[in-house]
This record gives sequence, structure tokens and C-alpha cells, in this order.
Amino acid sequence: MELGFFDGEFIDLKERRVLLEDRGYQFGDGIYEATHVYNGKCFALDRHLARCRRSLRELRIPITYMDEELTAIHNDLIQKSGVKNGVIYFQITRGVAKRNHAFPDSVVPLLSMTIRESKTNTKWQEEGIHCTLFEDIRWLRCDIKSLNLLGNVLAKQASHDKNVQGTIQYRKDTNLITEGSSSNFFVVKDGVIWTHPISNLILKGVTRSILVEKIIPSLGYTLVEKAFTPEFAKSADEAFATSTSLEVTPVVHLEDATIGNGKPGDVTKSLLAAYHDLVKKECGSLS
Amino acid sequence: MELGFFDGEFIDLKERRVLLEDRGYQFGDGIYEATHVYNGKCFALDRHLARCRRSLRELRIPITYMDEELTAIHNDLIQKSGVKNGVIYFQITRGVAKRNHAFPDSVVPLLSMTIRESKTNTKWQEEGIHCTLFEDIRWLRCDIKSLNLLGNVLAKQASHDKNVQGTIQYRKDTNLITEGSSSNFFVVKDGVIWTHPISNLILKGVTRSILVEKIIPSLGYTLVEKAFTPEFAKSADEAFATSTSLEVTPVVHLEDATIGNGKPGDVTKSLLAAYHDLVKKECGSLS
Repeated sequence: MELGFFDGEFIDLKERRVLLEDRGYQFGDGIYEATHVYNGKCFALDRHLARCRRSLRELRIPITYMDEELTAIHNDLIQKSGVKNGVIYFQITRGVAKRNHAFPDSVVPLLSMTIRESKTNTKWQEEGIHCTLFEDIRWLRCDIKSLNLLGNVLAKQASHDKNVQGTIQYRKDTNLITEGSSSNFFVVKDGVIWTHPISNLILKGVTRSILVEKIIPSLGYTLVEKAFTPEFAKSADEAFATSTSLEVTPVVHLEDATIGNGKPGDVTKSLLAAYHDLVKKECGSLS
Repeated sequence: MELGFFDGEFIDLKERRVLLEDRGYQFGDGIYEATHVYNGKCFALDRHLARCRRSLRELRIPITYMDEELTAIHNDLIQKSGVKNGVIYFQITRGVAKRNHAFPDSVVPLLSMTIRESKTNTKWQEEGIHCTLFEDIRWLRCDIKSLNLLGNVLAKQASHDKNVQGTIQYRKDTNLITEGSSSNFFVVKDGVIWTHPISNLILKGVTRSILVEKIIPSLGYTLVEKAFTPEFAKSADEAFATSTSLEVTPVVHLEDATIGNGKPGDVTKSLLAAYHDLVKKECGSLS
């Protein structure tokens, strides 16, 4: 089942609730989060809510929802919809005002949410995915999880156009890989794990943070947070993408190159297994 | 009076019509145009419609409205609202689909429009405006008039924070001025008019095009379409911003610098007068 929430009420996703002059609709002026529901429980919701607050602060959108309130609505959506495994999406826009670029005075932010069943793509996790390379043309505040997603949309579409599963973006001026179209990207080379450092050019993914702060140290791997070129990535021993929906998904082909032996690598597999252990610990079960 | 239009119907701006999963609301996945109404007539609507088609094509949004149809709706909005002088805003989003970055299959684009009274700021035109400089952090497809406007919003807000009227953006990597937060920017130095060339870094403004193609040649001025630094602009004899709402508005202060003698320059004034002549010719009157 699927269910929506808008401005204080649970609604059907077919209900028309948004005004033309919602700044989310005319400027993409808002932020969002998407949380994975396993076994009827939100995983790592505290991290998503902390990032939501940061995004709002960076865009100077007033914070009008407490974490306790957002947590309660997440739980209500799970209960009312009956969804056991799925995704809860929420966005907060700056609100409704006569169209004008600058921030309007005394406007109240608007929260909307959706919940839907969805399944982790275990085939991708077992076999690995193919990714294309695409120029990163996004703005210079990719650290904010904003609704200005056209760059990500065009990047993701590039993989559909090429009949592959994912897209890895690189900045043309530096020839350095940043991240996927909605994931972070890692490679493993000579026993060291590499990923782009936290900066204005990438989103600090929740799954990335869990890997970097908890799983990688606990498994004793060496991590370098340092940007690398597409050529370096193509010559890596292993590669993988991380996100709330992908979890840890091996990348076995990048554009024209086969990564390692074309199969998910041992480091990647151990990270995914450890991630699943964490999910089970927090949510009781993976499904 | 103000009036709206959504998906085939004229509506009150307070009517809730938009769905949560409109891609305009979740991705800013759409384009827009804003046309100036003088004396109950749209000025340069053909140029706005041509640019709209180009934006749609660049984003691969199917074109489902003919120019004749869009023109008719513009005229209907003017008649039904009774607005003589104002702005008609319209946007077209990719449509409604279950949230997923890549383009959805078989989705129908959605048109929404608003009309409102508004007045040209003649005080600004007579006295000139003060502008602040702000780093251009937008994506690398500023030639598309898309709904991903957060970069423009933050730029415009910078001028509000500093209590000045406008913002001029520059790229940090090149130290070159691109354009205003919703306008094109020109300077005059040693008798030559300079403006950023058409590229992926600026919007090809309708007012800019009218100046470049018609007014500047007819007045016999020399134009250089070439990017310049903030320092060059500060040392210019004259400066001005152009847009559908600003028309040709002199810029007399840029950040800490006074441009020329701090008053609107002769070249700028002659361009504005010629622009007003064109409006009168097409719309019969300026008001």
C-alpha cells in the first residue's frame, strides 16, 4: 500500500494539495530525505533527521518540525499503510508566497511525505551493476539535499539511455569523480578503500557515513577520503556504490572497463554483510 | 486581480491542484517563462515561446502545447483577469509519476500559469540600482530556464541581506561575471558595450536578445560579447541589467564601487528609451 502526508494530514497520493505558488513547485526551494523501512522500522532515522536539519539551516528555511514529531509521523505512516519493507520519502519546502526569488517574509514551511513498498535489489548486490560515466554539471552545493535535482535526473537518465544500471559523475574541470546520481561511490585498490572527501561537491550519504564511521574501522580496513579520476576507478580492484536504497552495491563495469574480475569483490561483500548485520541489529530483520 | 491556470482550467490561485508526486514539486523537473503585459498585451511573446520550446527540448520534456494554444491562454488570462499591466508566469513540468530520478514512461507534461498586476520600477530606471557581487554556484546548464532556481534564490537573497536592489554573479574559478540573479548584465567602457557571450553559463534573456539583435545595431553602438571580471565592471563608465521586468535598468554601484559618476549613463538611457519605443510599437502604450 502507499500513503501520503501533507501539511498535517494523512492523504491519498491522488489528492491534490499543493498550491501553484508553493516555492517547492516554482523554485525547487526545499529539501528532502528518504529512509529505508525494514521489518516495519525506519533504519538510521536519527541520521536522516540530523541531515534534514542541516539542509534546512544551510538554505535558511525555518525549522518548524521537531525530530520527535517527524519520528512520530514516520511511525504513523508505517502503521497506517501497513508497509513492512519500503521507503519513506519526505520533503520540506519554504512554503507558499507570491513568486519572487528572495526569501518571503513570515512564510511557514510545508512538509509532505510518502510511503511505499519497495525491495532492495538483491540481484544487483549479488552480481554487481554496470555504470556509465557522466559529467557532473550540478550546482556547487551538492552537500545540501535540495529539491534542485535536474542534474541528478539527467545523470540518472544517461544510464537508462545506455541500458546500464547506474551513473557515476565526474567534474570536467578537475577530471575527478564525485559520486553517483543518487549514491556515493567507492573503489578498492591495493587493499585501500577510496572515496571522495566530504565537500560542497558531494552529499554526505547516510550509508556512506555508517561505512566510514562504523563499518570500515570495525573491519580494520584502511580508508582514504580523497578524490580520484575515472581512469583510477577503472583500474581499481573493486568498486561499489552506497545509498539508502542500494545499501552497498558492487559496481563491476564502469563505462568500457571491467572492474577487477567483473565480479563483486571480497571487501565489498564483507562491507555489505556488516551493513546487513547493523540493519538486523536495529530493525530486528532485513525483511 | 490575479488568476491561475492549471492543466486546462482557469483557477483561483488558492486552489490546491498539484499532486505531491508532480516532478516539478519533487525534482524541480520543469521549465518556465515570464512575460510582461503592457496595455493588456504580451510583449515579445513569440520569443518567450521559442525559448520555452528550446528549454523543453534540452530537458527532453515532450512538447504538448502548440504556440497558438499558449498564446490563446495568455490572452484569455489577460481578459479574464482584467490585468492591463503585469506579468504572466507559466511553467511546464514533466508531469506526475512515482518518484524515481530517471524520466518516467508515458507521462503527460503539466502546464500551470499565473497572472498578476505589476509595475515597472521607474524609480530604479531613473536613479539606477546598487548591486552586490555573489559567487555563481549554479549548475552548468544555466542556458535552460529550468525550475532548479535555488542558486538564483540564494544570489537574490544576498542583495536583500545587504539592503541593495540586485545581485551580479561571478564564477569563482575564472573570476568572470556571468549575469544577475534573474537578469543579464552589461557594462559600457570607452564607448563599447560588453556582455557575457551566449553559453551554458547564462540564460539567453529575451530583453538581452532584443538589445543585441535590434536596438544596439540600430543605435550604432559597438557590442562585444565577451566575459569580463568584477574589477573591469567596477571601472566601467556605465552598467545596466536587463530582464523582462527590469527592462533596461542602470546599475550605479557594484559592491564597493561607484560606476561612472554614480548616475545612469547616456548609453544606458538611450537603450531604455529605444526599448520603450519598441514596447509602444508592439503594445500600443507602456501602460
